[in-house]
Amino acid sequence: MSEAPTYDSGNVFAKILRGELPAYKVYEDDHTLVFLDIMPRSPGHALVIPKAPARNILDIAADDLAHVAKVAQKVARAAKSVFAADGITLQQFSEEAGGQVVFHLHVHVIPRFTGVAMKPAASEMEAGEVLAEHAARLKAALAG
Amino acid sequence: MSEAPTYDSGNVFAKILRGELPAYKVYEDDHTLVFLDIMPRSPGHALVIPKAPARNILDIAADDLAHVAKVAQKVARAAKSVFAADGITLQQFSEEAGGQVVFHLHVHVIPRFTGVAMKPAASEMEAGEVLAEHAARLKAALAG
Repeated sequence: MSEAPTYDSGNVFAKILRGELPAYKVYEDDHTLVFLDIMPRSPGHALVIPKAPARNILDIAADDLAHVAKVAQKVARAAKSVFAADGITLQQFSEEAGGQVVFHLHVHVIPRFTGVAMKPAASEMEAGEVLAEHAARLKAALAG
Repeated sequence: MSEAPTYDSGNVFAKILRGELPAYKVYEDDHTLVFLDIMPRSPGHALVIPKAPARNILDIAADDLAHVAKVAQKVARAAKSVFAADGITLQQFSEEAGGQVVFHLHVHVIPRFTGVAMKPAASEMEAGEVLAEHAARLKAALAG
């Protein structure tokens, strides 16, 4: 069994939080930021992250996790409406064996459509104009 | 786009909550119940459900969801320790298109091991004695 996980502030989501990298942002409050996955497994695939430094489910403060969950619900409801999705898949990966690639906790909110499988993770970069349009629609729904 | 989801109290998890069906229970509090998936995608695969009737992410009360998330974290930490897991995968499926089969909200907490893929969902029933032993170990860790 491995040692307790630790947070490395050099990860790309920490850079997005610090404004060092751009993102297709859709929602922000005091505790969370939501932006689109640039390699969506399905159109409108969003990521909800805490602003507090947390590597994954194993080290996040319970109240921060609860807030992330509540925001993931808001995003799920908005995405279902905006993209006329038939369902939603949530995923959260902790540690490499659990599927984690970026080591800042994130919850995947993935709109799903009847008969359409998810693309493999991180398989194809979406066009910038598509991401911008999806982000704008989701942002408007979340602000409404 | 489909109509708003509704809750059907005839689902198997509602029957488990009412004591009409057995389950390999590992944790219970005022708001949640945790038991093992009898067709685990990996050893120790547990399900966290709210006691309140909720179909999925689209209709659960936000505070109930927050509580489910906090309990999922407790289970994840306990499972990582008990089963010497290298990581944890969380999944939550809403509506059939999202992967949902039982229509009472549940969060999958799946221990993961380096180099070992998850089995396909609902692919193989685990032996009762294995489930009982895993449930007992996880229950003890959660009570400690």
